[in-house]
Amino acid sequence: MAGNSFGNIFKLTSFGESHGLAIGGVIDGCPAGLEIDIEFIQKELNRRKPGQSAIVTARSENDTVEFLSGIFEGKSTGTPIAFLIKNKDQNSADYEHLKDTFRPSHADYTYQKKYEHRDYRGGGRSSARETIARVVAGAIAKLLLQKIGVTIHAFVSQVGKIRVEKQYTELDFSKIETNEIRCPDEQVANEMIKHIKFVKSKGDTVGGVITCVAQKVPVGLGEPVFDKLHAELGKAMLSINAVKGFEIGSGFYGSTLLGSEHNDAFEKNTEGKITTKSNHSGGIQGGISNGQDIYFNVAFKPVSTLMMNQLSVDKEGNTVIVEGKGRHDACVLPRAVPIVEAMTALVLADYFLLSQLSSIKNIITE
Amino acid sequence: MAGNSFGNIFKLTSFGESHGLAIGGVIDGCPAGLEIDIEFIQKELNRRKPGQSAIVTARSENDTVEFLSGIFEGKSTGTPIAFLIKNKDQNSADYEHLKDTFRPSHADYTYQKKYEHRDYRGGGRSSARETIARVVAGAIAKLLLQKIGVTIHAFVSQVGKIRVEKQYTELDFSKIETNEIRCPDEQVANEMIKHIKFVKSKGDTVGGVITCVAQKVPVGLGEPVFDKLHAELGKAMLSINAVKGFEIGSGFYGSTLLGSEHNDAFEKNTEGKITTKSNHSGGIQGGISNGQDIYFNVAFKPVSTLMMNQLSVDKEGNTVIVEGKGRHDACVLPRAVPIVEAMTALVLADYFLLSQLSSIKNIITE
Amino acid sequence: MAGNSFGNIFKLTSFGESHGLAIGGVIDGCPAGLEIDIEFIQKELNRRKPGQSAIVTARSENDTVEFLSGIFEGKSTGTPIAFLIKNKDQNSADYEHLKDTFRPSHADYTYQKKYEHRDYRGGGRSSARETIARVVAGAIAKLLLQKIGVTIHAFVSQVGKIRVEKQYTELDFSKIETNEIRCPDEQVANEMIKHIKFVKSKGDTVGGVITCVAQKVPVGLGEPVFDKLHAELGKAMLSINAVKGFEIGSGFYGSTLLGSEHNDAFEKNTEGKITTKSNHSGGIQGGISNGQDIYFNVAFKPVSTLMMNQLSVDKEGNTVIVEGKGRHDACVLPRAVPIVEAMTALVLADYFLLSQLSSIKNIITE
Amino acid sequence: MAGNSFGNIFKLTSFGESHGLAIGGVIDGCPAGLEIDIEFIQKELNRRKPGQSAIVTARSENDTVEFLSGIFEGKSTGTPIAFLIKNKDQNSADYEHLKDTFRPSHADYTYQKKYEHRDYRGGGRSSARETIARVVAGAIAKLLLQKIGVTIHAFVSQVGKIRVEKQYTELDFSKIETNEIRCPDEQVANEMIKHIKFVKSKGDTVGGVITCVAQKVPVGLGEPVFDKLHAELGKAMLSINAVKGFEIGSGFYGSTLLGSEHNDAFEKNTEGKITTKSNHSGGIQGGISNGQDIYFNVAFKPVSTLMMNQLSVDKEGNTVIVEGKGRHDACVLPRAVPIVEAMTALVLADYFLLSQLSSIKNIITE
Repeated sequence: MAGNSFGNIFKLTSFGESHGLAIGGVIDGCPAGLEIDIEFIQKELNRRKPGQSAIVTARSENDTVEFLSGIFEGKSTGTPIAFLIKNKDQNSADYEHLKDTFRPSHADYTYQKKYEHRDYRGGGRSSARETIARVVAGAIAKLLLQKIGVTIHAFVSQVGKIRVEKQYTELDFSKIETNEIRCPDEQVANEMIKHIKFVKSKGDTVGGVITCVAQKVPVGLGEPVFDKLHAELGKAMLSINAVKGFEIGSGFYGSTLLGSEHNDAFEKNTEGKITTKSNHSGGIQGGISNGQDIYFNVAFKPVSTLMMNQLSVDKEGNTVIVEGKGRHDACVLPRAVPIVEAMTALVLADYFLLSQLSSIKNIITE
Repeated sequence: MAGNSFGNIFKLTSFGESHGLAIGGVIDGCPAGLEIDIEFIQKELNRRKPGQSAIVTARSENDTVEFLSGIFEGKSTGTPIAFLIKNKDQNSADYEHLKDTFRPSHADYTYQKKYEHRDYRGGGRSSARETIARVVAGAIAKLLLQKIGVTIHAFVSQVGKIRVEKQYTELDFSKIETNEIRCPDEQVANEMIKHIKFVKSKGDTVGGVITCVAQKVPVGLGEPVFDKLHAELGKAMLSINAVKGFEIGSGFYGSTLLGSEHNDAFEKNTEGKITTKSNHSGGIQGGISNGQDIYFNVAFKPVSTLMMNQLSVDKEGNTVIVEGKGRHDACVLPRAVPIVEAMTALVLADYFLLSQLSSIKNIITE
Repeated sequence: MAGNSFGNIFKLTSFGESHGLAIGGVIDGCPAGLEIDIEFIQKELNRRKPGQSAIVTARSENDTVEFLSGIFEGKSTGTPIAFLIKNKDQNSADYEHLKDTFRPSHADYTYQKKYEHRDYRGGGRSSARETIARVVAGAIAKLLLQKIGVTIHAFVSQVGKIRVEKQYTELDFSKIETNEIRCPDEQVANEMIKHIKFVKSKGDTVGGVITCVAQKVPVGLGEPVFDKLHAELGKAMLSINAVKGFEIGSGFYGSTLLGSEHNDAFEKNTEGKITTKSNHSGGIQGGISNGQDIYFNVAFKPVSTLMMNQLSVDKEGNTVIVEGKGRHDACVLPRAVPIVEAMTALVLADYFLLSQLSSIKNIITE
Repeated sequence: MAGNSFGNIFKLTSFGESHGLAIGGVIDGCPAGLEIDIEFIQKELNRRKPGQSAIVTARSENDTVEFLSGIFEGKSTGTPIAFLIKNKDQNSADYEHLKDTFRPSHADYTYQKKYEHRDYRGGGRSSARETIARVVAGAIAKLLLQKIGVTIHAFVSQVGKIRVEKQYTELDFSKIETNEIRCPDEQVANEMIKHIKFVKSKGDTVGGVITCVAQKVPVGLGEPVFDKLHAELGKAMLSINAVKGFEIGSGFYGSTLLGSEHNDAFEKNTEGKITTKSNHSGGIQGGISNGQDIYFNVAFKPVSTLMMNQLSVDKEGNTVIVEGKGRHDACVLPRAVPIVEAMTALVLADYFLLSQLSSIKNIITE
């Protein structure tokens, strides 16, 4: 109810504030017997961590995951998998001056009004540090999805007004991790990086779009009518800090088309399997995966913390100046790529498990 | 789990197929003592019904809601409110030819694969007739929200490439219901209507965008981190048939801006209350309502049922022709306006109730 | 949240008041492809209905179930199964005098205080008529359990101080339905019937105990730690009107034993399968079914409605006389037998489905 | 779903194995602004810990709770409260010999069959060490309930066949903590202690009953029909290790009474408030608290681990001897008292919060 759990069967409950002792989570519902590759999980976490390149925040947070339960002899036991990542070198005094100040477009004001008592240090619970728990849980979900061949690739497709014009099908996903911005189109990547550096030099920030593609997803994932697969994916993405929009398949562009242009005709492919000629549906029809690629876009607003002075108010409504200081991202997109993938994996793993129970034929073999 | 319930406290469970006996639902968690204005509910339902104007389907479905429980002497009793709308004059024989056919971009194929047994008549459960239950429940949620002054207005802001260029703040919401397309900009409305008639004359269909604005929402609605208010609104919208995209506040456009352009500065207004100068946030910060207008766009793909022949396959993968016949919408947008409002009301009512429990000060008066 | 849903995967949401238009429910999560034997369901309902014998209430309620959705060509479709049973011949005027009166040991007072607005006719939502929905849903759960060989038998093992002294293993379950009280020990059954008739002649009522035995339950049902199988069974039973106690296996008697007396030693049986010599555990260890018989007792208090005058108070606390009139059960036990079975079936079907997801080996066949 | 969460609004998710790194939990839904008295919480934990007296296990586990999140400046912030208790001095090698052995009446066999991979050291997740998380969360629930005046007292009312014959109303709860067995009737307490020492000297174990009384519970807690207050209390108790039975108010004894004996007549008390003359209902009518004392009994089976040799089988069904060694409780009752209280507090806090949303009058003050 209070919003810190995600999933139905494969369920993450996350906890922790940016300047508390630790960020962590509990995964309940991971089936027993799954090999938990901790090295892989740490690697995913490293893709998210600050200080990994010149275009992200210079803060050094050496986030190391520790598992407390639910794993025995390298495999899940079916009991809750609890984990934590200790917060280190957090200088809380840095935030004393923000105690009574509401920073523009942050969650300070709304948390204060909702809870009437809040941990104001570094955003507390509203800090994007919370996404650490998502990346760890998402990595375990990926390990489960690997068992059935699903792959997930997210990449930065737009920074400010600079965007990848190619279709995702024309891109080489193996190039995503070869540059700092995590964009597989090298030329566009370079422009993006240049732009971020420029924006950063001005003390400003910039938004962008991440595109995510999930392939080899089995047919049948998604629970109509309210829990359509893309509805849950949309919620998952919109729950990530700074996300303002989500579109699947043809998305907003699709709304400008005619039905005769948009419909995805079925056909039998050369292997005799039913497939579709086009994929405006984005791999989901009637809320259920149809076996085609699932692809969607996620819009991120520019980071709210600027390296320049801004006017704001304090609790009493007095005008105050919010100074630009500290080490922050000018563009959060490259570090958000693993988060988008993690949330995608959480949804797909959960819905894959749920889908096992759709039909009596799956369950009972007479 | 199986996807037919929506909400946490104020919870709708919906049921029914388009050609079954009835569509209906059960609302559990409506507080006792709420006046249930059945005339108002029926009026909302009439805004959704087919045959209401020249630009929507000519099917005549005189949907009348019947309440079975949970209301006594005109008020809710706190027990489940069950309701149904009988399906009439449904000619199931019309669909016999579709038994083994997968219509393009419909849910026929995915339902067949997921459930291995389906009611193929008129789309069965995947039919948009299911949204009747949402409109009824949403109307009751609106009655609850009226108590705290919340208003919700949705309107068609785009049909195909024709769009309202004005900001929503420049529009007069009282004009929404004055034209068939439910667009408050009369000039644009006329163009939209003309375009739909043209598209219809070709046997084709067209998509579009609905904009929704919720005003006077109290501060404090939204449960971070996964159940952010806009994440739940996004899921609610994406769960509506034919929706492919959702954006809140500045949305996808916001991702092209700089932080210095996008941040909403706080200020004290003339009444001494804290407000924001701009509202790129769309009334939600850190996942929690901040008291400003909540506004968002919802993208609808064009209707998949065309009045022209299309190629497709049957269960065995054989090529078949799907004929264009029956009475269907060339553009679903005007009838979707009350559905968007209903889902918005369901989310806001539910999150309003949840928000009552956020702080001990709300609960215990010492 | 509001308490009208039961189950995780196989989930019943029930609705209806005793003097409203109908009692009914929605089952969400029944897998597709299950044959729905409506005759069997109606038969189960008939075991619960009033007027079936001389020892139960003479009210004639010819409860007939109607299905509204979720079934197509005789099989479940995986979509919500909605059903209702119309209330007939209810004379609401009978209850006008109870409008402001709180009947002793009924729910009148607590409903009034909790909801501040209630349907006082015949107990409204608190009436045991609500259990109709449980019996219908339980019958469908039984159809699912039949597929895996599970059998469930409940019987009256005690009325007042008259009890069956034999172990359940010494009883012939096929005799349960051969007498009005539903007790397989014929001699004890006769005493019970005689006692009920005597109590009834005095205008009084009497309580008792129902024993339930579930056999051939697969190993592995139950979700530790909070959702232990017997914890959920206990909740299911305690949610039935008039139930005051629940004990599984050795129960309260077991608490008087020594560990060396109580432990169930494992052994290999003649078929080479692991079994236990005794079954004090009642078929559940660590909250998980172990393949042995699951058996438990459910204590029912005597019916609160007496055919004699009682003193009580009205809303203002004034002393009033509650007259004994109408047609009511002197002993609810025989009619509660199918309800106990239904709730048992709901728990077992739900936990059977959940158990499919416990281990990766069940889910992924490499 | 997987059974490690408890509660609706005030929700505990627990984790940890007896020989893993830590036991802990996350509480989501504790309202913001509650003073968190850590000393009180630790004191509750100390009531549960091993080695506290001569009649419980001599194992020394100095369980110290550490909070990781959700508390700031001594008060809850409305965000998840995560905590852990490290496992110390656990000698896992002690359990190597049990790797393939199924101890009688333990969860070894069922965990093995359900999960196919388990942490066999000291029972792993099935160990009663898990209840540590319940005591911590229950202590916080108690802090919330203190705000509204609710008190909860549990005590040992029976050990083996030795029982307190007095009504709870005749007992002085302040004496509960004055003896090792936690029984307020000193004479009976002495007999119980003597009996436990005798049983222990034989290497055997003994069961018993705990009685719990919750006083000053507000009217209106409980969500009919499935989530009746006593149904949830029953589930809470039955989820505690070794519990085999639960009865509320008159319980099993009540089933032997006549309605005229059992009914609780309403009357106006001297303060002009509506009360009941007797309280066979145990403070709950129609599933909702009526303001009277809530009291119930919880039956515990004797501990399964004996200090004597027992025959059992291994994975292959071969006969093996389970040796009696290690340090274990001969009677778990005194240490279970705080666990029973904790689970009671969790239910009452959760249902108190839920009850705030029952009626529109509570929510909206016009």
